[in-house]
Amino acid sequence: MKFQAEIDIMPRTEILDPQGKAVKLGLGNLGINNVNDIRVGKHIVMNLEAENLEEAKQKTETACKKLLANMIVEEYTYKINLEI
Amino acid sequence: MKFQAEIDIMPRTEILDPQGKAVKLGLGNLGINNVNDIRVGKHIVMNLEAENLEEAKQKTETACKKLLANMIVEEYTYKINLEI
Repeated sequence: MKFQAEIDIMPRTEILDPQGKAVKLGLGNLGINNVNDIRVGKHIVMNLEAENLEEAKQKTETACKKLLANMIVEEYTYKINLEI
Repeated sequence: MKFQAEIDIMPRTEILDPQGKAVKLGLGNLGINNVNDIRVGKHIVMNLEAENLEEAKQKTETACKKLLANMIVEEYTYKINLEI
């Protein structure tokens, strides 16, 4: 079966996000004000094959924990769609 | 009014994604096989204030076009939630 995992990896909220601060500054220079907070992370789209949804979840979890996310400073969320 | 924009900025599909290729290789080394394709982009969460949803959309569009996305090689999608 074919699945598509959409993964978001964001800096943990308690962690300072210098990239977010830089983007906020840049938006201010463009005249886009009233922006309170910006956080910048990674969006990963992974097309994979698995026996079932459970296996697709397991593969996605392992990929996030072992490679895609730095679990000390980042957190991940994902959703998995069945590809028809 | 307070809004939260969730923005995904991805490499255009016709553009080669070396980062995606590198991640796919890494997953293979971890024994995670049957991964057909991986694309890596940015996920940006922006908390902003605006008079109404329309203005929030406009600010988000301008932020994407002028700063967050390189429109030649990237495409963006976003969703905006009203923060209660």
